[in-house]
Formats: sequence, C-alpha cells, structure tokens
Amino acid sequence: MIDSAKVIAAGVVYDGDVWDLCNYQNSPDAALKIFDILTLSAAGSETNCSAVITNEETTEKFGFSSPAAYPSVSVINPDLQSTVTSHYLAYSAVDICSHCLDLYFTASYIPEMTADHIENILKTVIRTTDILLKNPSDYEARSEFIWAASVALNGSTRIGVEGNRFDTHLIEHSMSALYDIPHGAGLAVVLPAWTSWHMSMNPQRYERFARNVFGVQRGEEGVEAFRNWIVKIDAPVSLKEVHIPENGIHPLAAHIFRTIQMAGMQELYPIETLTDLLSSMR
Amino acid sequence: MIDSAKVIAAGVVYDGDVWDLCNYQNSPDAALKIFDILTLSAAGSETNCSAVITNEETTEKFGFSSPAAYPSVSVINPDLQSTVTSHYLAYSAVDICSHCLDLYFTASYIPEMTADHIENILKTVIRTTDILLKNPSDYEARSEFIWAASVALNGSTRIGVEGNRFDTHLIEHSMSALYDIPHGAGLAVVLPAWTSWHMSMNPQRYERFARNVFGVQRGEEGVEAFRNWIVKIDAPVSLKEVHIPENGIHPLAAHIFRTIQMAGMQELYPIETLTDLLSSMR
Repeated sequence: MIDSAKVIAAGVVYDGDVWDLCNYQNSPDAALKIFDILTLSAAGSETNCSAVITNEETTEKFGFSSPAAYPSVSVINPDLQSTVTSHYLAYSAVDICSHCLDLYFTASYIPEMTADHIENILKTVIRTTDILLKNPSDYEARSEFIWAASVALNGSTRIGVEGNRFDTHLIEHSMSALYDIPHGAGLAVVLPAWTSWHMSMNPQRYERFARNVFGVQRGEEGVEAFRNWIVKIDAPVSLKEVHIPENGIHPLAAHIFRTIQMAGMQELYPIETLTDLLSSMR
Repeated sequence: MIDSAKVIAAGVVYDGDVWDLCNYQNSPDAALKIFDILTLSAAGSETNCSAVITNEETTEKFGFSSPAAYPSVSVINPDLQSTVTSHYLAYSAVDICSHCLDLYFTASYIPEMTADHIENILKTVIRTTDILLKNPSDYEARSEFIWAASVALNGSTRIGVEGNRFDTHLIEHSMSALYDIPHGAGLAVVLPAWTSWHMSMNPQRYERFARNVFGVQRGEEGVEAFRNWIVKIDAPVSLKEVHIPENGIHPLAAHIFRTIQMAGMQELYPIETLTDLLSSMR
C-alpha cells in the first residue's frame, strides 16, 4: 500500500506515463508528501524511499527508488497490528527475514558490526513471531517485530556492506506477479530451495548464520533449522502449496530471467539454473 | 568541537546570553547550519542534536538539546582518524562504552532487540580498539569503531527503552569541569567504581552484560572483565592517575551534587553517597 502511494505520489507530479518511472532506472525527481499509518509491517517501505509495484497489464513487477519518495510521517503503532491474521504474520516474518538474508548471504563483505545487527533482526523476528502466533496482542513482542521490519530495510543493514544482491526477491517477484500469491508466501517457498542451492558459494557466511541465529554448528543445519521454522509458522515451502502447477515452471523461469537480465545477473542465473531451482521447489 | 559549534550556531541567532540556553531546560528554536568533519569519534555529536559545554567562568558543564542543532552534514572518514593517539583512542573507546552503559545499566526496561544492539556496539568497540592499538591505520577496524561511536548516541540505543539515566556522565562532567582532564579519561575512572557500586540495583542486567559482552557468567566477573579491559588499553582507573588529589573529593562531591539536583536525582545520590563513590576511586 505504501509502495502504491509512492508511485501515485510520484506519478501525480510526473509529466508522462508513471510506468516510465518503474523500471529500476529512471528515478522521480519529485513526489507529493506521503503520510502513512501501517496496518501490516513487513515491506519496510515506511522507512525507505523505494517502491515495487505490479503492472497487471504487462505482468511486470518492477520499482523505483528516489529520495523524493521518503514518507514524511509513518505511524507505526503496535496496537493497530494485533488483528493481523496468523498467516499474514507468518508471511510478514518471512519477508523481513528475506530482506536480511538476501543481503547477508550474497554480500562479498559485511563488517562484523553490521553482520551482528542483521543477526539481531533475524533473531528478533523468529523470537517474536513465535510469541505473536500464540498471543497476537502481546504489545512488547509486536513492538519488536514491527521495529525489526522497519530496521531490516531502512539502510542500516547495508552499512559498510559490499557486493550484495537481492536474489530471492528477483526470483519471487515473478511468482507473485504471475500468480496472485502474497509476496511473503512466495519468499517462504523460494528461501529454503535457494539457500540450499546457494550455500556452497559462501560457506563461511552460512556457518556464521547457523551458529549465531540458530545455535547450531554447520551451514546445512542452519538452513535446515530455518526451513523447519518456516514450516512451524505454517508458511508454504513448495510451489504446490501456493498452487503454482508443474507446467508453470518454464514460463515462470522465462519471466524471472527477464528481471535477472535487467539486474545484469544472467551469468549467475541462466534459464536452466532458474528451471532447476524452481523444480527443486516442487 | 561539534558541541561548541552547536552552541555557537544557536548563540548567533539567539537574542540574549548564549549561556541561558545551556541549562538542560531552555532549548534553542533556531541555529545556523552546521557542517562538520570529524577528527575524533567518541562524543557521537555528529549524529545527534545535543551539546555539552563548559563555562570556564562558572565551572559549569551543562548543555542543551534541540532539533535545530542537528548537523546538516557530518563527514566521518576513517582515514582522517588514523593519527589519533593511542591515549585518545582509549579515552574515546571508554566514552562510547559509557554512552551505552549508562543507559543499559540504569534503564527499567530495554527491549531484547535494543539490548542486543547495545551489546553489539560494546563488543565492536572492545574488539576494534584492540586492533587499532596495534595498527592505527586498520581501515576496517577504524570504520567500525567510528560507526559504533555515531550509533551509540544517534537515538538507536533508546528505542523502546524506559526509565534510563546518565549517571556516570553526570558524575564525570564535574571532574572534567574542575580538573582539565579528557572526558573519556574521567569516565574510565568513574565506570569501574560506579558499576561495582550500582550492580546490586540491577543484577540481572549485569549478568546479561557479563554473558553477552565478555562471555563470563556472573555480573561481578563482567564488571571485573570491563575494568581489566580499561587497564589493558592504558586508560586511568583511579583519581590519582588523573591527578585529582584526596582533598579534592569533598569539593568535587559538592560540585557533582549540583548537577544531580538539576537532574532530580538527589535521593539516589545524596552527597555522602557521592563522597563514598569518589573515595572508592582513589
């Protein structure tokens, strides 16, 4: 919703088609002021200047980033989120984790202090989701959960970080663009498969994740613990669970590949790799 | 230096005596814009809107806080701090820790996520100080050290925190106001004595500190490890080392008591308690 508001706010003062702005290349110079009240914390849009939006005609899910799009005021009140359903709480939790993990696992360098900060967000989300699934009106747990959501994407997780990408997001955006599933549900499907596939490319970081987030020793155990947590909070971990059929894999891979090309990541993710990755999510 | 700039920036546009603004009560409405380049990271003034300054005529060391005093631009470049002396590095390290510890030990409530954030800053300062004392031009360690200094006082350590005070700062300010010693050196003297005295008022927090910052079990061991670290980095831990004579204790206690009264903390710190506390620093 805040992302839509950002695109509308930029579109109103843009002398042209607003979709021109949503291609990760053009950045709007100006926008109306945005005042928002959060009903759900996950995207982190309340404390950043980016937006991702689906063009339903072209089935593209792209976005923009511009200092003009920072919300002027964001009201983030724990009480207002106590009625979020358990499913959407789980999807939100996975979304917040994915904002951390895309960066954490792909970055070529993360300062120790920033890595600890990211692990703190992950531990906070995991701990408070467990509490909130039992008692949705736990004020302290909700406060920490929604603050973790904001902090996960307000820029603080990128301090001193080099060479990070947003792999699972690029993959998932096509899933929720082509199939009408919540972004967090799509990420819940992507993350276990992607981390298993990606782990060998950054084994030390996965070991650190295993140790500091789940208190286990090996990278494989960490990835397994994370998958078990997703299952435990009742989020989907397979394409089947989100009703993406087996014959949908090829068109989906082709759709993702377009985004991958825009991000200049086609060498890492040729269409065969994407197909294999999606097949491992069945 | 940035604190002085803030007071000057507020004083230029204030229609009266600038010292009126420096009493923790009046807050300036306006100030000139401040652009700063850091030569030393410790105070955190580069990312907040507060200032503390000494009036040498009255020997008062008070300050103000005002949104008008936020620096417009702060240039924080690790390279520019590689020539900081080992003594000033140590004083800076203690100052940053004290910004965290005053809040951490006195707060009646700290969210788990914020406590973990504070512990991350403390661990970062301790780890990088050890590296920088050996190699002052270690760019990565310096980057983390100076970022820790900014984060320790940019508001992020107070998220969701209730009932915190700045005890060791209130005590130390009189020391550096009456005796020309660096603020961080004074804090190095105050902290071991104060934490030993204060520990019984918040034993669980001290146990957490011991466990999460120094990897030891009991609060006493944590306080001891912290004192040993101050000694190791060659900062002073006694009044004698900073040339405050024994007959200086009574006037010092009287001076501190005035600040304590302004902060409304006279029940916790009657003048006898301050005298005992200072005596334990001999």
